[in-house]
Amino acid sequence: MPLPEHVAAVPLDKAYRLLNHGPTVLVSSAQGGAVNVMAAAWACALDFAPPKVTVVIDKATHTRALIEGSGRFALNVPCVAIARETLALGTDSANTQPDKLARHGVTTFAAQTVAAPLVQGCVAWLECRVIPEPHNQQQYDLFIGEVLAAWADERVFRNGHWEFGQAPDALRTLHYVAGGQFYATGASLQVTL
Amino acid sequence: MPLPEHVAAVPLDKAYRLLNHGPTVLVSSAQGGAVNVMAAAWACALDFAPPKVTVVIDKATHTRALIEGSGRFALNVPCVAIARETLALGTDSANTQPDKLARHGVTTFAAQTVAAPLVQGCVAWLECRVIPEPHNQQQYDLFIGEVLAAWADERVFRNGHWEFGQAPDALRTLHYVAGGQFYATGASLQVTL
Repeated sequence: MPLPEHVAAVPLDKAYRLLNHGPTVLVSSAQGGAVNVMAAAWACALDFAPPKVTVVIDKATHTRALIEGSGRFALNVPCVAIARETLALGTDSANTQPDKLARHGVTTFAAQTVAAPLVQGCVAWLECRVIPEPHNQQQYDLFIGEVLAAWADERVFRNGHWEFGQAPDALRTLHYVAGGQFYATGASLQVTL
Repeated sequence: MPLPEHVAAVPLDKAYRLLNHGPTVLVSSAQGGAVNVMAAAWACALDFAPPKVTVVIDKATHTRALIEGSGRFALNVPCVAIARETLALGTDSANTQPDKLARHGVTTFAAQTVAAPLVQGCVAWLECRVIPEPHNQQQYDLFIGEVLAAWADERVFRNGHWEFGQAPDALRTLHYVAGGQFYATGASLQVTL
């Protein structure tokens, strides 16, 4: 399956940088023909090599069952162009609206190492396997994943760095606050000591 | 001890919002007369009520010993005005430069519930106790904290929301990438479904 236009592989030792600036993500998952995507503000890098991530997945979500069943998920990093879809995917639950992806026009493409699909229109993607930690999962809804493959939109992530400055502002990543309000990733500052 | 100008208490049920948008933080700690502050990009909200956070603290840091010894730490959210100090506090180690705070002109004020001091010039502060999870700490350098008290600069955080729009850009929070490059928190987007 060919990758969508502009999607390029990110070396695993640079994968942490896709999350280092703290963007809101979409969590995609799949098991036994069921597929879901939910928004999550609580995702974070955990290690460099092999790259690991943390993500908080509430027990009430449909995604939780798909991740626990499959042991796999993907983190997709959305951008300003799909802020509305991101909010919708974080508001609707597949438990009550099983057609939530179609309803919000969300389309996906195939991942390389996991069954979880990757969301079109995002600007970075991390394919992950769950490192089983039952106590964290049960007590804190906290999942640890090892990144198996990573991808980014080469218009905004090149040579291991986000470069939003010369791309359309619609490709900037998102940082959720509450009540439908996001901040876009803003101005770049280069600091030297 | 009076609070610095502009510093106001944040209700605990809104404390997660101080980290929800994924800013880079400064981790402060104290034990037995020793005090340290280090930068960390890998901090994240974990729960709403009681509010909890995660933060990754490498075993090689001086901060690690102070947190493990005291069971307390604070997360301080720096802004553009102190980006240089933030980078310096993430670059220098107190293990080799015990005067690193003075060297970089970092001043602090007293926290309410923890011995760890709060860093002047930041725009939000979360005082935390460690919830002991030895396996996470040893295996992943991952610490879980319960937020005991929270504060924010009322010029940019009011009524439970960040409001950067009408304040000087120097008060915007920071999102670290790598190599001395940060992004500032950018434009606000209000999305309605």
